[in-house]
Amino acid sequence: MVDSTEAVPPGTGPPEVNTKDEDSAVQHRAFVEALIPKFKLERLLNQALLVIERAALPSKPNVVSQFLEHIHTTTNLGANDIYHWYMANHRSQSTTLSPGSPSDLKLNLIYPCTEKHIRKYSAQRIHMVHETSQIYSKHISPFIDRERSSGRLNWMYNIIEGRSEQEDVILRSHEVSKAEEGFLLLPDLNWDRETIDALHLLAIVERRDIASLRDLQKQHVDWLRTMQKKVLQATVDLYGDRGIEEDGLKLYVHYHPTYYHFHIHVVNVMLEAGSTQAVGKAFGLENLISQLELMGGGPSNGFAELTLTYGLGEESELWRKIFKPLKEGKLMP
Amino acid sequence: MVDSTEAVPPGTGPPEVNTKDEDSAVQHRAFVEALIPKFKLERLLNQALLVIERAALPSKPNVVSQFLEHIHTTTNLGANDIYHWYMANHRSQSTTLSPGSPSDLKLNLIYPCTEKHIRKYSAQRIHMVHETSQIYSKHISPFIDRERSSGRLNWMYNIIEGRSEQEDVILRSHEVSKAEEGFLLLPDLNWDRETIDALHLLAIVERRDIASLRDLQKQHVDWLRTMQKKVLQATVDLYGDRGIEEDGLKLYVHYHPTYYHFHIHVVNVMLEAGSTQAVGKAFGLENLISQLELMGGGPSNGFAELTLTYGLGEESELWRKIFKPLKEGKLMP
Repeated sequence: MVDSTEAVPPGTGPPEVNTKDEDSAVQHRAFVEALIPKFKLERLLNQALLVIERAALPSKPNVVSQFLEHIHTTTNLGANDIYHWYMANHRSQSTTLSPGSPSDLKLNLIYPCTEKHIRKYSAQRIHMVHETSQIYSKHISPFIDRERSSGRLNWMYNIIEGRSEQEDVILRSHEVSKAEEGFLLLPDLNWDRETIDALHLLAIVERRDIASLRDLQKQHVDWLRTMQKKVLQATVDLYGDRGIEEDGLKLYVHYHPTYYHFHIHVVNVMLEAGSTQAVGKAFGLENLISQLELMGGGPSNGFAELTLTYGLGEESELWRKIFKPLKEGKLMP
Repeated sequence: MVDSTEAVPPGTGPPEVNTKDEDSAVQHRAFVEALIPKFKLERLLNQALLVIERAALPSKPNVVSQFLEHIHTTTNLGANDIYHWYMANHRSQSTTLSPGSPSDLKLNLIYPCTEKHIRKYSAQRIHMVHETSQIYSKHISPFIDRERSSGRLNWMYNIIEGRSEQEDVILRSHEVSKAEEGFLLLPDLNWDRETIDALHLLAIVERRDIASLRDLQKQHVDWLRTMQKKVLQATVDLYGDRGIEEDGLKLYVHYHPTYYHFHIHVVNVMLEAGSTQAVGKAFGLENLISQLELMGGGPSNGFAELTLTYGLGEESELWRKIFKPLKEGKLMP
């Protein structure tokens, strides 16, 4: 908290500003400028009385090249197929790093990468699109089926069946009599696997019949509640000794997800919300359950009926193959 | 895009890592370290092959004090009651600012501030809570009524009725014959009012009978659609010449909102998603409309029936007055 009582006695405000009066505007500016350096740090707030935004990361080619040259102390976190994760440090020319300093960079290396990866990560314009139930059933659902049958989920099935990446499986919950409720906990790509305030896990269900939230129906409400309870409990069992409680965890799912096999994101509520939690992309699991319960119709009614609105990059397959042709009238809804 | 073909011939990967074998792990690390400085900048991606996270803002008292001493060129953006907004620059000791440089800081000053403001902005633990329909009707709805009747919305009514802050009103849409569809567009507190990629407006409806999304019912579907259309159109009319199109805008509402008078957030989809767009807090307007449509029951059925799950800081009134006593069994649900 910043205490300004030294600079301004309580009850007096900044001089009145009359925007039509240049003199008083100048006076006011002088008053504020004089006030700020006199703020006395009393205790630290999250960010508010003084909101400070950092400059963007370097983007000029020569600055980026310089930046890359000073990355060092790379530590491997793990790998899966073409995806490799590292912690690293960046040394600016003027400072030397004391041994044992915490890493200040996280690197995600995709090697070898394809044109599709490059498109996904390229700076690109984003369009909001409306995926109606009609567009879903006619265009999106077949697209998802093609994705699923093309072998792109094999790496996921390999993990579920214990054939690969077992060193990354944090927990496997499986009862033979309740195969439907089996799931695995893995660290999310974006978690450094250490910082508990940034905890980010994925709960991957064993059942294979749910490609995305579009497949969730009223009949899944009990199953979803059970999964929610089990995932929360498992996470608390694992990280309770590091301060994690059930009401300190946020559960959500993505639409569209990165891969079409149902999985739940589990994050520490203290984690700063970024694009992974953005409205339009992320749906709170418990809000989804409540929404399903209140839907009209029978047990097979569900999210296939919704209109979902979300942003798509111009380089994404969904934009190029479906929504761009729809917008241009080259494809019928 | 970062091209690594100089460092690694296509088709060859990093050496296999056997985590049990220290030597090969060291070899692998050396390989990666050698690789990174040789990355050649080809074109810039959004962030992915190399995810770089900045260090946090200063929090040590002496560093913060130093930081504050170097804030200058403060420019007033506007004010409303106790809230004042400024753009400013920060001069580190080693650099001099060339005239006309863009501002690199935005300051929100609350003066004079109350204990409630201090609580709101204090670093605090967050709890996920489940607001059931029962908790809503028994505890939250009366809380909202008290907030609304305590005069805390007077500043909002003053704006709507044209008595104050008119210089901030970007647009007023009002047809006498359709009073229900009237709304005002204002800049959000977090927008610098210049950067079009960060465009963030608030559409404040003129009608006063909707305190929050909890009051939205099936009978409001047509009205919501009309508002959505009008708000999008108005924003494109205003900013179309700066590149804004309808499908470049994201509309959402907050629950809980900062004040209990229905308003819609309008942001550029290019704006990096932060806590204002976080799942649990932000609800896409069009998804809400679709959800209402598919709800069972008659026209007065609506979001009062939902269970809503969201995070609350320990210093918030809702936590201290309602959810903490509920958790401790001192209040009945």
